[in-house]
Amino acid sequence: MKLPTIRKPYLLFLGDSPDLLTAKTAIGVAHWRPEWCAGQMRLAGCAADAGLPDMTIAEAAGKGVGTLIVGVATTGGVLPDGWNGYMVEAIEAGLDIASGLHSRLADIPAIAEAAARHGRQVFDVRHPTQALECGTGKKRSGKRLLTVGTDCCVGKMFSALAIAREMEERGMGVDFRATGQTGIFIAGGGISVDAVVADFISGATEALSPDGDADHWDIIEGQGSLLHPAYAGVSLGLLHGSQPDALVLCHEAGRLAMDDMDGRPMPGIEETIDANLRAARVTNPDVRMVGICLNTRQLDESAAHAAIAETAEQFGLPCVDPVRTGVNPIVDLIEGL
Amino acid sequence: MKLPTIRKPYLLFLGDSPDLLTAKTAIGVAHWRPEWCAGQMRLAGCAADAGLPDMTIAEAAGKGVGTLIVGVATTGGVLPDGWNGYMVEAIEAGLDIASGLHSRLADIPAIAEAAARHGRQVFDVRHPTQALECGTGKKRSGKRLLTVGTDCCVGKMFSALAIAREMEERGMGVDFRATGQTGIFIAGGGISVDAVVADFISGATEALSPDGDADHWDIIEGQGSLLHPAYAGVSLGLLHGSQPDALVLCHEAGRLAMDDMDGRPMPGIEETIDANLRAARVTNPDVRMVGICLNTRQLDESAAHAAIAETAEQFGLPCVDPVRTGVNPIVDLIEGL
Repeated sequence: MKLPTIRKPYLLFLGDSPDLLTAKTAIGVAHWRPEWCAGQMRLAGCAADAGLPDMTIAEAAGKGVGTLIVGVATTGGVLPDGWNGYMVEAIEAGLDIASGLHSRLADIPAIAEAAARHGRQVFDVRHPTQALECGTGKKRSGKRLLTVGTDCCVGKMFSALAIAREMEERGMGVDFRATGQTGIFIAGGGISVDAVVADFISGATEALSPDGDADHWDIIEGQGSLLHPAYAGVSLGLLHGSQPDALVLCHEAGRLAMDDMDGRPMPGIEETIDANLRAARVTNPDVRMVGICLNTRQLDESAAHAAIAETAEQFGLPCVDPVRTGVNPIVDLIEGL
Repeated sequence: MKLPTIRKPYLLFLGDSPDLLTAKTAIGVAHWRPEWCAGQMRLAGCAADAGLPDMTIAEAAGKGVGTLIVGVATTGGVLPDGWNGYMVEAIEAGLDIASGLHSRLADIPAIAEAAARHGRQVFDVRHPTQALECGTGKKRSGKRLLTVGTDCCVGKMFSALAIAREMEERGMGVDFRATGQTGIFIAGGGISVDAVVADFISGATEALSPDGDADHWDIIEGQGSLLHPAYAGVSLGLLHGSQPDALVLCHEAGRLAMDDMDGRPMPGIEETIDANLRAARVTNPDVRMVGICLNTRQLDESAAHAAIAETAEQFGLPCVDPVRTGVNPIVDLIEGL
């Protein structure tokens, strides 16, 4: 299976994002891949800033930009009508366009026609277009790490990226494998596993992380949680398809209720570790937990360090906050595997 | 969410099926819903027989048939070109058409045009068209039973249907809820959960089995296995969305390797029960296992009865073979819940 590749460098389109959260895809891409980002384009009223030079589409084309990335969440996941013109302008200027919105840019006639006329690509990265197959469970060569979580939005993508970067800096053979829209822009390719047909979740993951050199690591971005009543199917297919040698558990310290689930209490770290190890053994009996990434954004500096130390002690595993402390203790353990 | 309803009675189209297995959808529909089946239509070379009167499309139309059901597996899941004419003829005669094939009849221009011209429906039941939502995990009223398996093709649909029928005969309030193509034809509606977008597996199941009367049972057709490296994501989303009060474990006695998985050894009954109970507690802490359906088709009569007795003893649960023994002991237990 050939995964699509998004042409670099990027122009990040922030639209009229009123805040950072709305533009979190663009902010994430700018944070992790500044070298791929030529600039940002902001409309009147935009209060977000990815810290890149502001530029027009014409300026971006002049600088050889490959792709305009719609890096913003919109109401209903739909491109506002008023933005169609910018997409067409980008296509006419020779750029591909890419979006992580729920609704497809390729379904908007003006955009589809412009792309056909100018021979440009429209990547709707939430909508896999590649032919997928069912999983096989067959052992693949190389090593794999998957980030898993107690809940959605606890830092599974950030943790995977931080681990992959640290391994790269140590000269290890490593690839970050993206399974969601922001990750796909950061990796330059990948599969949005929650958007594939249910039969193909593990097969898509197998294709995303193919055979590798014996000492090469794929660091796979996790999704959802095995204990999440809406998304656990995605998490389990991803876990089986990853056949991980190593798992890293991600959790947000102090979160009491699951994200967007009407007050449903959070599952515990121990319960989540246990569920993931049991399920992972179906495709890799030798799986092990190699660390905990504790998102301590709700805590002050001293409470954060106390929580990290306490969690490490309680579970007998390296524990870090990738933002505050980096991920060295986890990568130290991985290096020894 | 409104589920589509397939218009009865049916004309079962068996094509040129060389054997019973190829026509297993038609055979299953004829077995479970003879009262909905006006007849069968067989082409030259067909060696399968659903035990129904043979009739032409014109004869079926004359008898008020509502829907022609393509009840046959074809090479590659595609309708052979030579069959398009029969589909168009059925539409022109006033029938809807329905198919469980992988490829859509509605994508075949001649069929789509005929349906539009005559105002008839084309149901591609493997391809859900209804708007789906993510799961909520919220408790619904009424009671639910889900059949789960050690593997694919062990009898989860048959067991669910047998239990639903026995409950109906005892005057209990019960609905069979279909999650695969053959089940959908038998129920007259449902959702092919392995064909929904991965994010919606549990949400689709919640919609399939809505609030019910306090003593009403939904008997939900299981899919795959939690311990299957390709399909466990579907099985887990279905389990969470079902929020079952009761589980029935289905297993084939004497099967050594998983279906179509290159010799991969079968998971055990105990391991499968344990995995399902643990996972089911995420959405229903009071779930319990109420029986085992042992498919003994590989055994002779005395070996079958010995295996059933031994399994009941080993797990302390009612054990039956729905084909050989019926499901009374399991329904006895359900009645007491």
